[in-house]
Amino acid sequence: MTGRPPAPLRVAMIGHGFMGAAHSQGWRTAPRMFDLPRAVEMSVVVGRNPETTRRSAEKYGWLTSATDWRAVVERDDIDVVDIVASGEAHAEIAITALKAGKHVLCEKPLANTVAEAEAMADAARASTGLAMVGFTYRRVPAVQLARQLVADGKIGAVRQARAAYLQDWLSDENAPLTWRLKKESAGSGALGDLGAHIVDAVQFVTGESLTAVSGTLRTFVHQRPLVDRAVGLTGTASGTDLGEVTVDDAAIFSGELSGGGLATFEATRFAAGRKNGLRWEISGSAGALAFDLEDLNVLEYFRFDDGDTAGFRRILVTEPSHPYVAAWWPAGHMLGYEHGFSHQVVDLVTAIAAGKQPRPSFEDGLQVQRVLDAVERSSGDRARWTSVG
Amino acid sequence: MTGRPPAPLRVAMIGHGFMGAAHSQGWRTAPRMFDLPRAVEMSVVVGRNPETTRRSAEKYGWLTSATDWRAVVERDDIDVVDIVASGEAHAEIAITALKAGKHVLCEKPLANTVAEAEAMADAARASTGLAMVGFTYRRVPAVQLARQLVADGKIGAVRQARAAYLQDWLSDENAPLTWRLKKESAGSGALGDLGAHIVDAVQFVTGESLTAVSGTLRTFVHQRPLVDRAVGLTGTASGTDLGEVTVDDAAIFSGELSGGGLATFEATRFAAGRKNGLRWEISGSAGALAFDLEDLNVLEYFRFDDGDTAGFRRILVTEPSHPYVAAWWPAGHMLGYEHGFSHQVVDLVTAIAAGKQPRPSFEDGLQVQRVLDAVERSSGDRARWTSVG
Amino acid sequence: MTGRPPAPLRVAMIGHGFMGAAHSQGWRTAPRMFDLPRAVEMSVVVGRNPETTRRSAEKYGWLTSATDWRAVVERDDIDVVDIVASGEAHAEIAITALKAGKHVLCEKPLANTVAEAEAMADAARASTGLAMVGFTYRRVPAVQLARQLVADGKIGAVRQARAAYLQDWLSDENAPLTWRLKKESAGSGALGDLGAHIVDAVQFVTGESLTAVSGTLRTFVHQRPLVDRAVGLTGTASGTDLGEVTVDDAAIFSGELSGGGLATFEATRFAAGRKNGLRWEISGSAGALAFDLEDLNVLEYFRFDDGDTAGFRRILVTEPSHPYVAAWWPAGHMLGYEHGFSHQVVDLVTAIAAGKQPRPSFEDGLQVQRVLDAVERSSGDRARWTSVG
Amino acid sequence: MTGRPPAPLRVAMIGHGFMGAAHSQGWRTAPRMFDLPRAVEMSVVVGRNPETTRRSAEKYGWLTSATDWRAVVERDDIDVVDIVASGEAHAEIAITALKAGKHVLCEKPLANTVAEAEAMADAARASTGLAMVGFTYRRVPAVQLARQLVADGKIGAVRQARAAYLQDWLSDENAPLTWRLKKESAGSGALGDLGAHIVDAVQFVTGESLTAVSGTLRTFVHQRPLVDRAVGLTGTASGTDLGEVTVDDAAIFSGELSGGGLATFEATRFAAGRKNGLRWEISGSAGALAFDLEDLNVLEYFRFDDGDTAGFRRILVTEPSHPYVAAWWPAGHMLGYEHGFSHQVVDLVTAIAAGKQPRPSFEDGLQVQRVLDAVERSSGDRARWTSVG
Repeated sequence: MTGRPPAPLRVAMIGHGFMGAAHSQGWRTAPRMFDLPRAVEMSVVVGRNPETTRRSAEKYGWLTSATDWRAVVERDDIDVVDIVASGEAHAEIAITALKAGKHVLCEKPLANTVAEAEAMADAARASTGLAMVGFTYRRVPAVQLARQLVADGKIGAVRQARAAYLQDWLSDENAPLTWRLKKESAGSGALGDLGAHIVDAVQFVTGESLTAVSGTLRTFVHQRPLVDRAVGLTGTASGTDLGEVTVDDAAIFSGELSGGGLATFEATRFAAGRKNGLRWEISGSAGALAFDLEDLNVLEYFRFDDGDTAGFRRILVTEPSHPYVAAWWPAGHMLGYEHGFSHQVVDLVTAIAAGKQPRPSFEDGLQVQRVLDAVERSSGDRARWTSVG
Repeated sequence: MTGRPPAPLRVAMIGHGFMGAAHSQGWRTAPRMFDLPRAVEMSVVVGRNPETTRRSAEKYGWLTSATDWRAVVERDDIDVVDIVASGEAHAEIAITALKAGKHVLCEKPLANTVAEAEAMADAARASTGLAMVGFTYRRVPAVQLARQLVADGKIGAVRQARAAYLQDWLSDENAPLTWRLKKESAGSGALGDLGAHIVDAVQFVTGESLTAVSGTLRTFVHQRPLVDRAVGLTGTASGTDLGEVTVDDAAIFSGELSGGGLATFEATRFAAGRKNGLRWEISGSAGALAFDLEDLNVLEYFRFDDGDTAGFRRILVTEPSHPYVAAWWPAGHMLGYEHGFSHQVVDLVTAIAAGKQPRPSFEDGLQVQRVLDAVERSSGDRARWTSVG
Repeated sequence: MTGRPPAPLRVAMIGHGFMGAAHSQGWRTAPRMFDLPRAVEMSVVVGRNPETTRRSAEKYGWLTSATDWRAVVERDDIDVVDIVASGEAHAEIAITALKAGKHVLCEKPLANTVAEAEAMADAARASTGLAMVGFTYRRVPAVQLARQLVADGKIGAVRQARAAYLQDWLSDENAPLTWRLKKESAGSGALGDLGAHIVDAVQFVTGESLTAVSGTLRTFVHQRPLVDRAVGLTGTASGTDLGEVTVDDAAIFSGELSGGGLATFEATRFAAGRKNGLRWEISGSAGALAFDLEDLNVLEYFRFDDGDTAGFRRILVTEPSHPYVAAWWPAGHMLGYEHGFSHQVVDLVTAIAAGKQPRPSFEDGLQVQRVLDAVERSSGDRARWTSVG
Repeated sequence: MTGRPPAPLRVAMIGHGFMGAAHSQGWRTAPRMFDLPRAVEMSVVVGRNPETTRRSAEKYGWLTSATDWRAVVERDDIDVVDIVASGEAHAEIAITALKAGKHVLCEKPLANTVAEAEAMADAARASTGLAMVGFTYRRVPAVQLARQLVADGKIGAVRQARAAYLQDWLSDENAPLTWRLKKESAGSGALGDLGAHIVDAVQFVTGESLTAVSGTLRTFVHQRPLVDRAVGLTGTASGTDLGEVTVDDAAIFSGELSGGGLATFEATRFAAGRKNGLRWEISGSAGALAFDLEDLNVLEYFRFDDGDTAGFRRILVTEPSHPYVAAWWPAGHMLGYEHGFSHQVVDLVTAIAAGKQPRPSFEDGLQVQRVLDAVERSSGDRARWTSVG
């Protein structure tokens, strides 16, 4: 263990919107709270507009900014490419970076189509770089603990899962037609944006995969007020004209788990009063687990073995013995949304230092993509059960 | 308003199992707590076994007992026939009673088949007697309040409903093969037993009906230990032999609401830790309502209009101004499961006294039956969306 | 076991207000749901006004009514005297009944003064009748389970108790001056009405007694609108005149438990939004228990021994194995406020049939009275710690 | 507004334990998420041990480290002194820094004695520097919203407050005798550590001050196992020897609010199952507010004006319109414990840039100190009500 310490991992982040802020917070904070096996350098952030990108660099703590992602991705002095650009750009950037031997972290959903996701997984397999997709909600301590409990057999055989991701920002039929409501810009609606998270959550926590699905996509409000180009994507100036909504407002689907269980899913932007309600409950033969992202420091856990005093235990997952927690604050001190991004950095850097495949891999991301695709095909076929992949 | 008070309504109850105990509690208690427009006489309880029926009469407070339901139903001194016998007997008893001009209260589900339910609804239409089906969970004050709020437009247009009825008594794969798990005795499994309740709940609270469904029935554990004839229905003595489960363990389905909304349903006996978890949430364009039978004195209510201080209000539905409550205890004093049976008596007796059709009518019960039937047909057709009725 | 069955216990109830309705519900229902060792006959209800008492008899199911409690209490054909008259009448009626050898059930608080309560306890000791005081909240299954868990050492040594009884009906300063707000009619305010319950709850669940207290009584609103004689007690007709509030609006106190622990109490009618919020939490060296009467089917239970998955268990106390529950409905079917009155009847009749002292005894009621008295003395002495009794 | 931007505020942090990590997180993050009116430079961290201090500087992001706080505090190139050293050092450092004209942020409690706190408040008054005490729990968005609602009269006149700070790490009687359990090192026990927070919370949210208190301090476990010098403060090596606990395990007290209301407080380290349970509920004549730090993104709010649909609203305080939130994530994305430290930096830097007194001031911190002192005096006098200050 003599010799020089390993050089820091030099990171380029492509994109700098809301997700860029969250990823930056992760890159900045992880080395301050955890003992990482490699140091990290926030080398460069890349965006289209040189001025706003420069300001983001300064604001979020990147050493430099740039506008040409291709040039950056091929620089010798970049080790990790972190992709937070919009979905349709993921495949090209990730594949280019992997071909250049870079390690890649790509925001979810992996791509807008299965074909793209397959190409990305192929590129990951062929590369010397390691690739990870950014399902950060896996990194919530309560979710990690749930995964461990299932893996340890604590709830027995998984019989059912019920998962929902409930938001409400479209409940008002006069909410404007933003880019997220157009297929050409967003790929899909609630299904891709929210459904991807609950599919990953159920597959991750159960350790199983969905093999077939039956689903329905629904748009409740078909026309919405156009917004000005200045604030959106629609290209018109009028506040009274209406435009077509071309993605789903809600997606509901059922799935078969590889272990024989049955899962139900709901992804919606019409659940009045639910702001970021990612919830799931896993029912097994020996017990159950339940989680709600709006109460993210808590895992609920039921065991038949508790007998006469059985009841869902409200576990505050903030003990030093719980996943990730020892690096933060004492017991009972709450963690928040962005802690997952620090944990993501910890896990990625640890995997890179060890030369091991980080999870969720691009293969994992592709599997989620295939599930979403099967839901869409099922919906077109009047909800008939449809095989995944 | 001079003259003699009206004669009491003389009630015969057919059946005397668990539901008989609950109905008896309703008949005994309603006149003690409410001011009914007609007095009630608990005249006779009918069962197959003379000795156990006699004991039930004594225990539950019926004046006499009998074994021949046909004779009882046609007695001149009986006004109301309350059917709590097992499902396959509902149609014959109800139709006979209605033909005899009696008022009929029939436990849910109305019948084991749509054809039977149709015959019952026809008989009700043709009779001078009034007929009601026993969805008592409508009579929980919180549920009534919810109905009023929806009807008053407080949550705007109904976009989505998510309903589940979660129990866990089959989670253990060694739970015995009781009569409830055989199609010949129970008709169906979770679908008919639990699904009927959540279908009625969503239709009642929204004031809409389900027009099409897509669903899946699933049996997780196909064989279970036979139970002795002494304690069950299977006719064998062995504790180690296994028998076939011939009904569904769980039923999951989606439905289209007549107003354009989308509803999801789950009925299961495999939800570890959930004992009688009938839950629903109705999301509208202006707000939302949520209910859980395991916390039955509470209605949760969200309104966008509350602005910066909007949040689900946890309404304790125990104020004198709330439905049914004034007859009971002061604010904050909890009601329980069986209060619904008293409320059912109040509503039935009030309707009879006024000569008005009580709700839920047999027509309402038939509609629920049609929904369940469509779910079953859809399940056979790989979950394809299927019209109701 | 040959010979005639024992004669039924013949009950006289003295008083017929709100508490009379609740006690009647208990007397009527207990024999229908439980197997009592003695039958019960609701013989006579006693009140001042012959007409309203007669109507109460009819309504609540008593065979006859009467106006002279003394005559009734000494009738040979009365076995049990159930006292639900107002507090200042308790002592005289109870002592007379006990002297006549009757069994007595007396509503809480036992009396308006310690002297009266002592005389009652003396009378009980001297009588061949058995005497019980009506702290029905002890009979909630969750509370019984809590008592068992503490007695079994499941939470270790009791360190602290925090108890509150929160109501809000005086929050509005224009709420009228009813008889409950005058010392001459009510004895005390929140302290006697609500404080008695939480003192009994903590002593019962811990199995310990309070040995010293420090407390403060407070009246926030000193004058309130007088109410008409027709609807209240004040003797004036005006709605704008104000009268003096002469009891406490809130009582806060601390107590030393005989085992060395420390307890805090709050009884108030000014806790906006809390309707009947009797809550307590008992913290021990090995775990904790928590209860809330507004969610009365639930007991929360924490055990350090649960290790990494420790968390408050939300136990739905509705399993057949839980206290009292087997007589009622299946698991998950909620009980309500009045079930405690049935349980009280069960326990009283069982004790009488066995010739054993029922609990809480008059001695127990006296002990609560002494605690309340010590609180009042402490309050007069600027909250100094004051010995009980 | 032309000319050079203002120079960054140069910060020295004195101390680098757990609180140092939290403060560092605040200094690092605030400028990344908020638009501060002055830039911030994390100039130097000061500790006794040069090596561990150097490592903390590197880890937490300080430019340099030092060991002589006096020298640092008087450096011309330091603008702000952030004191996170242990309590007994607060006064000397703060007063020295204020005399040197520095701005000072001092962790709570302000000092170990009222005399020290008075000297600090005097020094603050006399200085050109601005002084703030670090009650960061004021900076939780839900708490700020609560303050606004009370100030806007939404709950009417404050009648009662009930506050508790519940932890459980001493429940086990074999928990070791750390420095926090010795008066010489910790000043006091639960009272100073936890009680200070709830006193500040109630005074802040109500906008009132406590004028008199009645309280009791209690030590449940008087002797605990000594810990090795290596891991603690006791100076012995044995694990079986016992030492004296010389601070309070729990403090319970009542207080009079300047507006006529009554408040109750409990601070304890013996509340099994409660990890960081800082809770309060404020009851007013028109409504109520409730908060729990273990669910810190939520404020509960009751209004009588909501009439028949009144119930505690569970407000998720994560909307962009809520205090501090716009700078973070979208609605429904949870904040955690350390966000308060960023908000503290925002408020301090904003006050400095504007030349205005930040709150809580040293005067505010002194007032809390006086309350704690009065509790201690009252406890010595058998809980007699004792004036504050």
